[in-house]
Amino acid sequence: MTKERLYLYDTTLRDGQQTQGVQFSTAEKQRIAEMLDALGVDYIEGGWPGANPTDSDFFDAAPKTRATMTAFGMTKRAGRSAENDDVLAAVMNANTPAICLVGKSSAFHVTDALGITLAENTENVSGSFQHIVGQGREALFDAEHFFDGYKTNRDYALEAIHAAYDAGCRWIVLCDTNGGTQPAEISRIIGEVIASGIPGDHLGIHTHNDTEQAVAGSLAAVLAGVRQVQGTLNGLGERCGNANLTAIIPTLLLKEPFASLFETGVTRDALKGLRKVSRSLDDILNRVPAKQAAFVGASAFAHKAGLHASAILKNPTTYEHIDPALVGNTRIVPMSNQAGQSNLRKRLTDAGLVVEKGDPALTRILDRIKEQEARGYSYDTAQASFELLAREELNQLPSFFEVKRYRVTVERRRNKRGQMVSLSEAVVVVKIDGDKVLNVSDSLGEDGSDQGPVNALNRALSKDLGKYQHIIDDMRLVDFKVRITNGGTEAVTRVIIDSEDGQGKRWSTVGVSANIVDASFEALLDAINWKLVRDADV
Amino acid sequence: MTKERLYLYDTTLRDGQQTQGVQFSTAEKQRIAEMLDALGVDYIEGGWPGANPTDSDFFDAAPKTRATMTAFGMTKRAGRSAENDDVLAAVMNANTPAICLVGKSSAFHVTDALGITLAENTENVSGSFQHIVGQGREALFDAEHFFDGYKTNRDYALEAIHAAYDAGCRWIVLCDTNGGTQPAEISRIIGEVIASGIPGDHLGIHTHNDTEQAVAGSLAAVLAGVRQVQGTLNGLGERCGNANLTAIIPTLLLKEPFASLFETGVTRDALKGLRKVSRSLDDILNRVPAKQAAFVGASAFAHKAGLHASAILKNPTTYEHIDPALVGNTRIVPMSNQAGQSNLRKRLTDAGLVVEKGDPALTRILDRIKEQEARGYSYDTAQASFELLAREELNQLPSFFEVKRYRVTVERRRNKRGQMVSLSEAVVVVKIDGDKVLNVSDSLGEDGSDQGPVNALNRALSKDLGKYQHIIDDMRLVDFKVRITNGGTEAVTRVIIDSEDGQGKRWSTVGVSANIVDASFEALLDAINWKLVRDADV
Repeated sequence: MTKERLYLYDTTLRDGQQTQGVQFSTAEKQRIAEMLDALGVDYIEGGWPGANPTDSDFFDAAPKTRATMTAFGMTKRAGRSAENDDVLAAVMNANTPAICLVGKSSAFHVTDALGITLAENTENVSGSFQHIVGQGREALFDAEHFFDGYKTNRDYALEAIHAAYDAGCRWIVLCDTNGGTQPAEISRIIGEVIASGIPGDHLGIHTHNDTEQAVAGSLAAVLAGVRQVQGTLNGLGERCGNANLTAIIPTLLLKEPFASLFETGVTRDALKGLRKVSRSLDDILNRVPAKQAAFVGASAFAHKAGLHASAILKNPTTYEHIDPALVGNTRIVPMSNQAGQSNLRKRLTDAGLVVEKGDPALTRILDRIKEQEARGYSYDTAQASFELLAREELNQLPSFFEVKRYRVTVERRRNKRGQMVSLSEAVVVVKIDGDKVLNVSDSLGEDGSDQGPVNALNRALSKDLGKYQHIIDDMRLVDFKVRITNGGTEAVTRVIIDSEDGQGKRWSTVGVSANIVDASFEALLDAINWKLVRDADV
Repeated sequence: MTKERLYLYDTTLRDGQQTQGVQFSTAEKQRIAEMLDALGVDYIEGGWPGANPTDSDFFDAAPKTRATMTAFGMTKRAGRSAENDDVLAAVMNANTPAICLVGKSSAFHVTDALGITLAENTENVSGSFQHIVGQGREALFDAEHFFDGYKTNRDYALEAIHAAYDAGCRWIVLCDTNGGTQPAEISRIIGEVIASGIPGDHLGIHTHNDTEQAVAGSLAAVLAGVRQVQGTLNGLGERCGNANLTAIIPTLLLKEPFASLFETGVTRDALKGLRKVSRSLDDILNRVPAKQAAFVGASAFAHKAGLHASAILKNPTTYEHIDPALVGNTRIVPMSNQAGQSNLRKRLTDAGLVVEKGDPALTRILDRIKEQEARGYSYDTAQASFELLAREELNQLPSFFEVKRYRVTVERRRNKRGQMVSLSEAVVVVKIDGDKVLNVSDSLGEDGSDQGPVNALNRALSKDLGKYQHIIDDMRLVDFKVRITNGGTEAVTRVIIDSEDGQGKRWSTVGVSANIVDASFEALLDAINWKLVRDADV
């Protein structure tokens, strides 16, 4: 049987940015667009050109994608032609192959929220899409409040979407803007829309999670006949979020009846990167990943109940609906020390540390990690700090140098021109082979601007490490993440530092303390020690 | 029309405890049981008596509830009578009015996971329930893996549940244990179960969230005829969690067709406490509440998009599917660079700043916010900093004091006992009414531990503000969030600080700088200035 093609439309960069507290930079938008493209979505909605500087900048330098880059805007305003609407012009000027315009399809919203006549709105819809299609662009209509509108004024809701369809719109996207429509209603109404003359392969669905059913509503719409699904990574979006593509995509690819009926732009191979895509977005947003997230959460395949855990060891299908590897996730069986040890050995081997099965050091390492994680550490990403911890327990960690003390001063005062300026200064005292070395550095970057105490500390620490200096000379600090977390009962600061060397090798280290400077210093120290373990001749 | 009664069965205390990292104490279980009872659920599953000391202790001193207290266990083992099964005896001995036993209904699990014959399993089910019902208890059967079992061996799945029903079980609960069954399948299979002779008012549904559709699966089951729904508060539970009662309950009470068809033990009045119940559970677990949670999340009624915000101000139903007050939640119209003037005016009015429509200050404020956000600031949550910015543009910000300079020192060295210890010291110089005041403080907490440079700075800054000191005396720093973000092309640190005063009033401020200490200082300054604006007589 030939599978039908289902199109995935991602709006993380536009509707996803409506999440409270989310504000992407242009560079972040570019990274996310590249991630989405590698995953295999069909459309990437990049933002609203003209609405704010970030979105405009993004389109000015949008990455080349296989996915259809789409600009978002709204239908033209009443009383002017599409050609003379400056808001629409800004959207057109982004020069994307596709344009998606939101417009009214609910009579109540036309007359009460917008304050124009139904006929005027219909003309705004027609006129806008005739203009876009006339310019040779692919057009999409986000029919706002479609389901609510349909329930109160069926005729007008249909009139609005037919106006867009007749004007040559490729996709009519039925939006449950307020998120309250139940999946069964979505199903029924879509059946009636198709019966009214718009075929399912021209219909899309856009749901919100206000009753925690956005995924179900989208999938019900697919079963009812629509062939485009709009959503966001990790379910970002206004209020409770949009339909979560991170749950929808694996369901479409792995669960029946979808897997047999449809194919998408996401391959089974790309699907294995799903967990990583989800985590990368959290990293960009510096958000704590949702442990219980379907498919990609750290707990999604964690089996805590004793009965489950013992059955899982016999046969994983007993308590798993899919193999976690299919989405790049891993099984966790906390009850079983055995599973923990084989995972650990795998990770040690990856680091070039071969440890025999049953070596008592394995238990010691697992215990240390547990202890450290209870204090706020996290070794998921900080592989280099993990390796140092393991080496310590395996007596394979040379002592290159010892930090005797450090002092950092941060000062803010008025300069000679009367401006308030900041300056930090760091002194670090280390002992190498019996020699005491004092290093001092300030916080000024090459352009003379203050880069803060952590940079000053980093420079002082890596200024003169005697016979090791040539090994760390090409190191640089490339990323610095800070999170307030819980260490036991107290809030502590967790710092993750990414370092890079001249060969482009990148590694991550972690530090934890109630004192943010201390936490940073610990991560800096680990970064240098890891580099020395790797490259020093001892 | 008379509404049909729908029963709510809460398993937060049993299945909810299977969440990774969740371990209730007996006292916590009692508090949660009381909360559930006040909310109005029909059954409270308290745990598995005999399985662990906490659960046994809970039943020994279970709170008196209107809800039916239920003990959980498993069907008797093969080769012995129900009377002689010690595991079952421990469950019976908890003396609850109702008992829920999990048992196999999937042939694969009987033969492969359990390793007994199908006939033996059927006898285990019959024998267990005959025993329980014979003792005058209300009996419930959690038919484990029912849907998966039904799909591979329909006859046996039906044989197992009919055995329980024929033995006098009040409720046959169809469990989607692995969480992979799609709502449409749940619907179809339930129709067939009812056709097989078990009426819907003896059927329950128990789903898991592994494809993010547990709520939808439960509601589809209700539409298909079941009359009991099992779930947990905040969707706690093994792996991705159980069906979330915090979303299901308001949907049943407020959304159609459910609201017209059914009544539950939860009244419209009790529903107003739902947000509080959800937060209390998070408090007990010391979890950060999920902002985007349906109905109860802090962002569930937050309107960030400018178009939405202006319509909401005209009529809240334009972008809200229910009135937030119905579930004890509140509307938020935050600032962001997508916000329009009406959004801004609403937010200013909330802050007691009345500005006429069209006032040029509105444009200036919006421009300043845009500019600041491009530098890395975020005013979504930092309402107090937003107010100060607006007041500045409106010439309504008195200058209480001026910071001339500050200096913070962070030192780490060996103490007399040879341990590495850290200590910070801060000096802040402020000018109040022409007088220069020097304040100094260290970073040691009441227990003598180092709390880092930001705490030292905070203490020095708020040590002596002269005539204003009495106003800020009751202020304390209650939360501190750090995020590395982009300010233009450079990575900068954004600090959000939450402060609280003696009246329990809480406010948030923001600071941004390449220097984390500077960013923190800026947020601390805003926090004090906001308090002075509010409470100082000027």
